[in-house]
Amino acid sequence: MKGLWLENQQLKLRTDIPVPEPKLGEALVRVLRAGICNTDLELKRGYYSYAGILGHEFVGVVEQGPENLINKRVVGEINAACGHCRFCRRGQPTHCENRTVLGIVNRHGAFADYLCLPIENLHPVPDNVPTDIATFTEPLAAALEIQQQVVLCSDDRVLVVGDGKLGQLVAQTLALTGCDLLVIGRHPEKLTNLAARGIKTGLVDAVTDKAFDISVDCTGNPEGFAIARRALRPRGTLVMKSTYAGNLSLDASSLVVDEITLIGSRCGPFPAALELLAAEKVDVKPLIHSHYPLTEALAAFEEAQCRGVLKVLLEVGEV
Amino acid sequence: MKGLWLENQQLKLRTDIPVPEPKLGEALVRVLRAGICNTDLELKRGYYSYAGILGHEFVGVVEQGPENLINKRVVGEINAACGHCRFCRRGQPTHCENRTVLGIVNRHGAFADYLCLPIENLHPVPDNVPTDIATFTEPLAAALEIQQQVVLCSDDRVLVVGDGKLGQLVAQTLALTGCDLLVIGRHPEKLTNLAARGIKTGLVDAVTDKAFDISVDCTGNPEGFAIARRALRPRGTLVMKSTYAGNLSLDASSLVVDEITLIGSRCGPFPAALELLAAEKVDVKPLIHSHYPLTEALAAFEEAQCRGVLKVLLEVGEV
Repeated sequence: MKGLWLENQQLKLRTDIPVPEPKLGEALVRVLRAGICNTDLELKRGYYSYAGILGHEFVGVVEQGPENLINKRVVGEINAACGHCRFCRRGQPTHCENRTVLGIVNRHGAFADYLCLPIENLHPVPDNVPTDIATFTEPLAAALEIQQQVVLCSDDRVLVVGDGKLGQLVAQTLALTGCDLLVIGRHPEKLTNLAARGIKTGLVDAVTDKAFDISVDCTGNPEGFAIARRALRPRGTLVMKSTYAGNLSLDASSLVVDEITLIGSRCGPFPAALELLAAEKVDVKPLIHSHYPLTEALAAFEEAQCRGVLKVLLEVGEV
Repeated sequence: MKGLWLENQQLKLRTDIPVPEPKLGEALVRVLRAGICNTDLELKRGYYSYAGILGHEFVGVVEQGPENLINKRVVGEINAACGHCRFCRRGQPTHCENRTVLGIVNRHGAFADYLCLPIENLHPVPDNVPTDIATFTEPLAAALEIQQQVVLCSDDRVLVVGDGKLGQLVAQTLALTGCDLLVIGRHPEKLTNLAARGIKTGLVDAVTDKAFDISVDCTGNPEGFAIARRALRPRGTLVMKSTYAGNLSLDASSLVVDEITLIGSRCGPFPAALELLAAEKVDVKPLIHSHYPLTEALAAFEEAQCRGVLKVLLEVGEV
């Protein structure tokens, strides 16, 4: 089969990869569509060590697996858990000590004709959700993780820093809570998407006072973190929603004096994300920048790395 | 009056300071005893800019103020709040935007014959609590702040990093919650105090796995922070209980991947601290290293700066 292979920070489109054989408890999924995420770009830049097929945002069709899923469109949670470690036992499979992660840690990913995942990771896509749209389930679930970690009140002032793919999903999900939301970024044309939905937006220098109860850094860069930090009132909460290249240097004493809470936030609930997409409460269409066939995955990656580009989708198969 | 004056990182024992005049709503307190805290040492090292009389841990006797407090022994909360800013209005006077802080920010401190504080900051010392012991009310309250910020369960595994003054108070207060506690430090002789109270202790290399639900860094140095971080399970909480000199460099991506929470923690509840001292549920006597008269405050400071020294108390006045 075809697959986009990463090794030693080099991407290669291979056509000689054997179709994977599902292990016990796994399903074989034929990939329809997949999205390029910042994590994929970071893996290519070598921020984390990984060799194999990239990709973790996808929609596919089950070819081998339980009868109720055969020929169904599915999305899949990316952490494959062992089921018996202390984190699995306490209901935190995304933190399983022995986990593999689709296209990220010891498990071939979704930029290929086929992938395997544990059956319990798969969620059928509601019929009314188009395949392009359903490809956003994984990042949308990650955005929803914030609400699993932080209690939001309707009078909370919330700041989202970053108008990229993740920032836009975070902003739309937070807006649904009714909180007092401001989204800031560097790209007026991206902020327009959000403004059209009635969300307050501004450029990065729009925040001048320490007034926010909660801030979310979706930039993954030190400047974004610093803006999110500065905007917080004492006893405020900063959610770190992006990974960072290298170490972050911060004024820890000011965190102590102001009794700030920092929370790292990663993968989130798929069912809630699919519900929002089915109910059209979140609009991901404006986030789609372009489509490429899998055979042009290298060009797709080039484009996804360009400044200001939102989601680039790979067309892998047909229903 | 006499007072220990800090200016340009130089300490000077002055005898020419006028006795302060309490403003509206303030009391005049004659100081009996005062404790030297790490923050005092850091102010002297110039980590924060402050000029004036140092000192914020004290017991005194009210000489001018409301009738019910006159001639009573009192301790005092160190943040003098404006009462009308947005933080005061939301019941967070320790974060008042316009606050002065005793011996730290724009308010002369306790290493002097007299000090002034707002009347609402003062708490009478229960008769059965000796003056030496009551001097620990402020740091003990700071230790108790952790329990205002983090919900502790009896099966939580909790690590305290640091066996100094603050670490010992934090350890004793956490032990009262019944959590599964381990305290680690570099000084076997200090850990003995805690072991004698039935608290598990170990040297800093005693922690080898990521198993703790909550860790508390009481060291204020990057190595202590790193140990507290490494010891946490995914979704664990790290409480930063000390200020740090300069910036702290940390692996922010690992905080995201492991969904770690960091919480800065500062001043805490005085009434709860006084209750613990009155009920003798916390034993601060082993923390007292030595006493010096205020006239020998410079020598007291020299001693307080020595490695391994716990609390040095200044004897200022008599009841």
